[in-house]
Amino acid sequence: MTVKRGPGRRPGSADTRGEILAAARRVFAEKGFDKATVRGIAREAQVDPALVHHYFDTKEGMFAAAMRLPLTPEVVVPALLDGPREEIGERLVRLLLEVTATPETREPMIALIRSAMTHEYAASMFREFVSNALLFRVADTIGVPHLRIEAAFAQMFGVVMARYVLRLEPMAGAEPEELVELLAPTIQRYFTP
Amino acid sequence: MTVKRGPGRRPGSADTRGEILAAARRVFAEKGFDKATVRGIAREAQVDPALVHHYFDTKEGMFAAAMRLPLTPEVVVPALLDGPREEIGERLVRLLLEVTATPETREPMIALIRSAMTHEYAASMFREFVSNALLFRVADTIGVPHLRIEAAFAQMFGVVMARYVLRLEPMAGAEPEELVELLAPTIQRYFTP
Repeated sequence: MTVKRGPGRRPGSADTRGEILAAARRVFAEKGFDKATVRGIAREAQVDPALVHHYFDTKEGMFAAAMRLPLTPEVVVPALLDGPREEIGERLVRLLLEVTATPETREPMIALIRSAMTHEYAASMFREFVSNALLFRVADTIGVPHLRIEAAFAQMFGVVMARYVLRLEPMAGAEPEELVELLAPTIQRYFTP
Repeated sequence: MTVKRGPGRRPGSADTRGEILAAARRVFAEKGFDKATVRGIAREAQVDPALVHHYFDTKEGMFAAAMRLPLTPEVVVPALLDGPREEIGERLVRLLLEVTATPETREPMIALIRSAMTHEYAASMFREFVSNALLFRVADTIGVPHLRIEAAFAQMFGVVMARYVLRLEPMAGAEPEELVELLAPTIQRYFTP
């Protein structure tokens, strides 16, 4: 990969990736998800856009990394497509329960949701990322109408909130397999238009 | 109704109900839902407990009134039982969409949820009210296991959040009847063990 160096541009260094992510967090916070650009983030980080592309394939991937979110279309889509279509609901429920079971991957998601619940600006960034970058891309790839993937999102969003934030029993202490059995048919139905 | 008047007790006046509710908000905030008592709220309001019972049949009803919540077991249970068992999911979805359609009834619920998402104390009060006073009483009356009513709660909680707080399109602008058609079978399945 050729990296052009202009005035004020720095070459890749040990923590260039970290500097790009810090710049990305500032730019996303200032412009929101839709209006932020790879070019603008490169400028903020004082690096060449090609270097940003070297570390992050897509703006979605950079946002997820900057917000420390474990879920991107690149993670979700292959997991959904890897197996029989009639078990897609089960695979999604299992993936989401696994990702949220670990505090290291769960807490950044919950932090973003908390901000989105209480600040309109964070809500609009969450909305742009979740709907345009995550849900609609997954929905369009697997052929599910947008309203139906949002119904599935609402189900799993509610489960994660009830289990980890509100900590309603018996939901909070339920075994993952019990939840898979209960929830997978719901998601399967939304994904079978 | 006979109201005993002791030292420092005030008789019913034009805004006695409002004073009891203000006292209830202070006591619920201090003690949480489970530990608050009608007697303690009467003491805080400097009225006889019988007067509190005159205005509010139950602690749940008082909490709902104090927090301006439109949903109590007294509202939900009759709506669910009033019709064929195989349409109970449809009746619940329709009731919740109607109650949340009006800002006056929706906003106090969302305010309580916002607090519960960001303050552990409010989360524990929300947990006690929603699970013990609302969900479990409804579940036990209509014969549904607690985990299943919480799955139904999670679905509708997620829909209300997606529609009114995160404002994800097309969920936010969807017609109520379209949502009833999409969501009623989910709730019906949870309510049919």
